[in-house]
Amino acid sequence: MSDLNAAELVSALARIVGDGNAKSSADAGEDFSHDEALNASWVEPDAVVFPESTAEVAAILEYADSHRVPVTARGAGTGLSGACVPRQGGVVISFDRMDQVLEIDPDNHCAVVQPGVTLDQLDAQLAPLGLVYPVFPGEYSASLGGNVNTNAGGMRAVKYGVTRHHVLGIEAVLPGGEVIRSGGKVVKTSTGYDLTQLVIGSEGTLAVVTEATLKLHPRLPHATTVLAPFETLEGVTSAVPRIIDSGVGPQILEYIDLLTMSAMTASGDLDLGIPEDVKATALAYLVVVLENAHEDRLDADVERLGVLLGDLGATDVYVLPSGAGRQLIEAREKAFWLAKANGANDVVDVVVPRATIPEFMERVSKLAADTGSWIAGCGHAGDGNVHLGVFQGDPDKRHEVMLGLYRAGMDLGGAISGEHGLGTEKRGYFLELEDPAKIALMRRIKVAFDPNGILNPGAVF
Amino acid sequence: MSDLNAAELVSALARIVGDGNAKSSADAGEDFSHDEALNASWVEPDAVVFPESTAEVAAILEYADSHRVPVTARGAGTGLSGACVPRQGGVVISFDRMDQVLEIDPDNHCAVVQPGVTLDQLDAQLAPLGLVYPVFPGEYSASLGGNVNTNAGGMRAVKYGVTRHHVLGIEAVLPGGEVIRSGGKVVKTSTGYDLTQLVIGSEGTLAVVTEATLKLHPRLPHATTVLAPFETLEGVTSAVPRIIDSGVGPQILEYIDLLTMSAMTASGDLDLGIPEDVKATALAYLVVVLENAHEDRLDADVERLGVLLGDLGATDVYVLPSGAGRQLIEAREKAFWLAKANGANDVVDVVVPRATIPEFMERVSKLAADTGSWIAGCGHAGDGNVHLGVFQGDPDKRHEVMLGLYRAGMDLGGAISGEHGLGTEKRGYFLELEDPAKIALMRRIKVAFDPNGILNPGAVF
Repeated sequence: MSDLNAAELVSALARIVGDGNAKSSADAGEDFSHDEALNASWVEPDAVVFPESTAEVAAILEYADSHRVPVTARGAGTGLSGACVPRQGGVVISFDRMDQVLEIDPDNHCAVVQPGVTLDQLDAQLAPLGLVYPVFPGEYSASLGGNVNTNAGGMRAVKYGVTRHHVLGIEAVLPGGEVIRSGGKVVKTSTGYDLTQLVIGSEGTLAVVTEATLKLHPRLPHATTVLAPFETLEGVTSAVPRIIDSGVGPQILEYIDLLTMSAMTASGDLDLGIPEDVKATALAYLVVVLENAHEDRLDADVERLGVLLGDLGATDVYVLPSGAGRQLIEAREKAFWLAKANGANDVVDVVVPRATIPEFMERVSKLAADTGSWIAGCGHAGDGNVHLGVFQGDPDKRHEVMLGLYRAGMDLGGAISGEHGLGTEKRGYFLELEDPAKIALMRRIKVAFDPNGILNPGAVF
Repeated sequence: MSDLNAAELVSALARIVGDGNAKSSADAGEDFSHDEALNASWVEPDAVVFPESTAEVAAILEYADSHRVPVTARGAGTGLSGACVPRQGGVVISFDRMDQVLEIDPDNHCAVVQPGVTLDQLDAQLAPLGLVYPVFPGEYSASLGGNVNTNAGGMRAVKYGVTRHHVLGIEAVLPGGEVIRSGGKVVKTSTGYDLTQLVIGSEGTLAVVTEATLKLHPRLPHATTVLAPFETLEGVTSAVPRIIDSGVGPQILEYIDLLTMSAMTASGDLDLGIPEDVKATALAYLVVVLENAHEDRLDADVERLGVLLGDLGATDVYVLPSGAGRQLIEAREKAFWLAKANGANDVVDVVVPRATIPEFMERVSKLAADTGSWIAGCGHAGDGNVHLGVFQGDPDKRHEVMLGLYRAGMDLGGAISGEHGLGTEKRGYFLELEDPAKIALMRRIKVAFDPNGILNPGAVF
């Protein structure tokens, strides 16, 4: 769409950010042509630019807009949907040099961060202050900029919500180079349209986020992991609302299916101490993490939870030693890598009303049987967010499976992606399955922000 | 803007909703020409229509759009900003007949409601199930439709957040009559732009909400109210972050200034048992409500809170008997009516970063002194949401005060309205003080939804 060649583009960008901070794709390296999506084809940008300030980002966007150069913002590149792949070439904006925690404000329980800050980096600064940013999507090298644009979730969402619920404000640059600030260190406003919430989860298609104000919480010092095998997945999902009703306030409520649990325990040193006869009857596992400011309350809650799980049909209840508990949660976080290592051809993160998980999984089993596919996984049982690895080498059959999965999720009142985003990988399914009136409305909103369509073309739509 | 006279409009609407459900303003009564805003001039609509289904709302909007008739959606009319006043005439859509709780789903912790359902009505259905919709803006006769469009807040926001954080999905009608559904019984999605969040708080200017799916919580049975006088407002606000850090998880964290507390205790039977010598030195009061599933934990937390408040400089700490505690919270909820009864000329609900409340109030005191005004109030200390009654009879001076208040709030990183909305009353200040780039962007978003500008013209913009 641009009238410039790649060399001209790099030179023009270098005038904004300085020599060495605007590179050709060859100089920048292949990292900038992909993320972690399993099937997204790699695409080289014409240039990669490394701004160090909002003013530089604004100048880049002003230039790009006037020359109709596509712009794709990139965080740490840990996404699973191809959202930071420069599908139409153009410029990739890397935030490697905008990686400062600008402020931690304990009195307002806020942190102000640049987009290149990683979850690891933020957590290291918050821990000594007894504070936590509780959104843990499972990949600590992910950047906050990427998290904001994906509306990243993770295992703690059942207690704390997702990125959307913790971003109080943003600074963002519009395609023409205008810089806006929306929200801030305030937990609520009713002052015009909520631009913050609109930009969150928009996958770089509406504006380029250059700063985020995040809500912090007190860091609770005590946590215990409880593992309960069940004879059916329905047993697990039926237990979930009753655990929430009990008031123990779980930080994590996950399910893991038989196949995934076998792979997790086989792949490492993870020994959960589950006897063979229990394993033999367990078709699904529930993992509950409780946390508390007080150790005695935590112990009492774990006790109550154990009794409740027994009443709800768990085959047994294991209160894991802290080392094993941590290992189990880490293994769960790495489920994607496990699926990938075992040859999964695609991954799914459909979200459904959580009580409908068994019905959804029945349809999944039927789809697997009908197409000769293997489908296994785990998920955020408390959120209805189902993570599945799909093992089906034939692209046509895989498309049939994926389309069927998404359709089943939407039929049950859910959505295609609970937390990974659409990116370029799920875009086609979204356009095929979503209400055309909503897609048309979203396209009009897109035009309201980005009339020339330079921001991340090929993602979402 | 329309080419129809009022009688033609009523007849046309009657063909959609049936005779008797479309009325002239004279037949409908004066209620439909105002809300509870102190200064909004009353405006009679040309017609009031009472649909009983989404299909009827769609037909009304299709008709109105094609004839360029302004449409103002109205809930219970308890708003404080004039947002449901039909500033340019046209049709008021009343949801009096769409007042059903469609579903309570304990397994997904959701309720699905029509817009005419009141908070009272929903709470009465949830209480026997041990569930709660925790957003309590203080006026229980308010409707959920109004709450959604205002993004209503209230005292429990410090623990639970505001309406925005509890609306998981909506059904809404666009001006052309298209019906869209966004979100649903899922706590998160990353599937395209979040239309739910965009419509929430848009004050009827983007779409007409015909259904909302709300997130529910377990209802905690035990609560205690603690009252602590402080010698300065700064003492109160400095205590707030430390109370949050302590992990007691307050449900309510309010401050009440001297004048307002005097008016509250003078106006009723509210006897808080505070000795005269304490009253003599108290310039501000902190009210904390703690709640818990377990009585013993609540008692322990109240004990810890008492010690902490002493350490933080409270003159004394009163654990109120449950009757007095309830009365105090009810009196606090009615602070608006108290201000009105005492002759307040306007009310303010500026939100600022909560640690900046003292600085904000210093500027307020200066504004009051400079203009010969009285300004008194209370607020959500945990949220930085300051509610003030402004006593200044002269309209020009009042405008100066209001403009100064809003400017001060924005300078500190806050916003004009924390929870009341802009409506027609704060529209002028918003247009004067907000970044023109953001207003232009919001207007473009408005056009994306409502190209002919029929939805609630005169509100927000």
